[in-house]
Amino acid sequence: MEQFEKMPGIGYKTAQRLAYYVLNMSKTEAEAFSTAIVEAHEKIHYCKICCNLTDDELCPVCKSEKRDKGIICVVETPRDAMAMEATGEYKGVYHVLHGAISPLNDIGPDDLSIKELLARLSSDVTEVIMATNPTVEGDATAMYLSRLLKPMGVKVTRLAYGIPVGGDLEYADQVTLARALEGRNEL
Amino acid sequence: MEQFEKMPGIGYKTAQRLAYYVLNMSKTEAEAFSTAIVEAHEKIHYCKICCNLTDDELCPVCKSEKRDKGIICVVETPRDAMAMEATGEYKGVYHVLHGAISPLNDIGPDDLSIKELLARLSSDVTEVIMATNPTVEGDATAMYLSRLLKPMGVKVTRLAYGIPVGGDLEYADQVTLARALEGRNEL
Repeated sequence: MEQFEKMPGIGYKTAQRLAYYVLNMSKTEAEAFSTAIVEAHEKIHYCKICCNLTDDELCPVCKSEKRDKGIICVVETPRDAMAMEATGEYKGVYHVLHGAISPLNDIGPDDLSIKELLARLSSDVTEVIMATNPTVEGDATAMYLSRLLKPMGVKVTRLAYGIPVGGDLEYADQVTLARALEGRNEL
Repeated sequence: MEQFEKMPGIGYKTAQRLAYYVLNMSKTEAEAFSTAIVEAHEKIHYCKICCNLTDDELCPVCKSEKRDKGIICVVETPRDAMAMEATGEYKGVYHVLHGAISPLNDIGPDDLSIKELLARLSSDVTEVIMATNPTVEGDATAMYLSRLLKPMGVKVTRLAYGIPVGGDLEYADQVTLARALEGRNEL
């Protein structure tokens, strides 16, 4: 119960329920569960190229021959890369920073996988898409990286800010609406 | 109570509470309330230029000399115009359609104030911004109007679709994320 309670989103009651579930497991089930936890730690590591999580030397995206290695989408976390994958629209590769620049939380550029990103840049890379979160930290990181990359002659783009599809103008916040107005496109 | 209960968002209990409140009003208060309702109906009508609600011949935006009459922002409802005003970023004028094209609800182009919009177009108008809602109906209306306006030589733009400011990439829906990727801007 103590172990379960440390996990995010799990309180005393849920920890109790999970602990009882473990007690009710068969011996093989319990062993499989325990091995899975240790193996996850041993086998899952960063992809040598994009720093995403993988159990192989390279992640499936970096390994795939169908992906365009000339476009790199920079995201904060592996979960963000998964969200981009879910759109089914992106055909390039990723680079996972594992965080965003945040002086308040004492996270500087050196704490992120920026060195690894710079090492990837060759003449084959035509575009780097900043897909960091639309927050102060994400924006700061995108600006920092764009200042670093632009002098190297790479095209740096940022995901569009605007009104979410299916929403209602009336309920959009003012900053988003102002950004949507600023970023309007010709029809 | 019967009268209050007809209003949106007001049920039996609230209607009861409001009715008791009316009974507790002083005579002058009750008369002021009653006059306000009748006067709202008599005095508030559409602005002659932009079809927004006003108690004057022209609405404050159309009357203002500080607003750029060369840019028209097309919105569905007066509330949408208010949302745009709240951003404080828009310096042009509005045109309120009073709805969106919706074949399912039997609303066609003739039910909207499109004639009035066409009548406003002169050589002074340089841009028409489609700020209809980011829904199927809003998009259909924007497309319909752009096909109508473009042959007349007017620049037609649409509010940017994208990730809302302050959000989280991980929780953005797939369609919005795909649109944000598609509409990415150079940094």
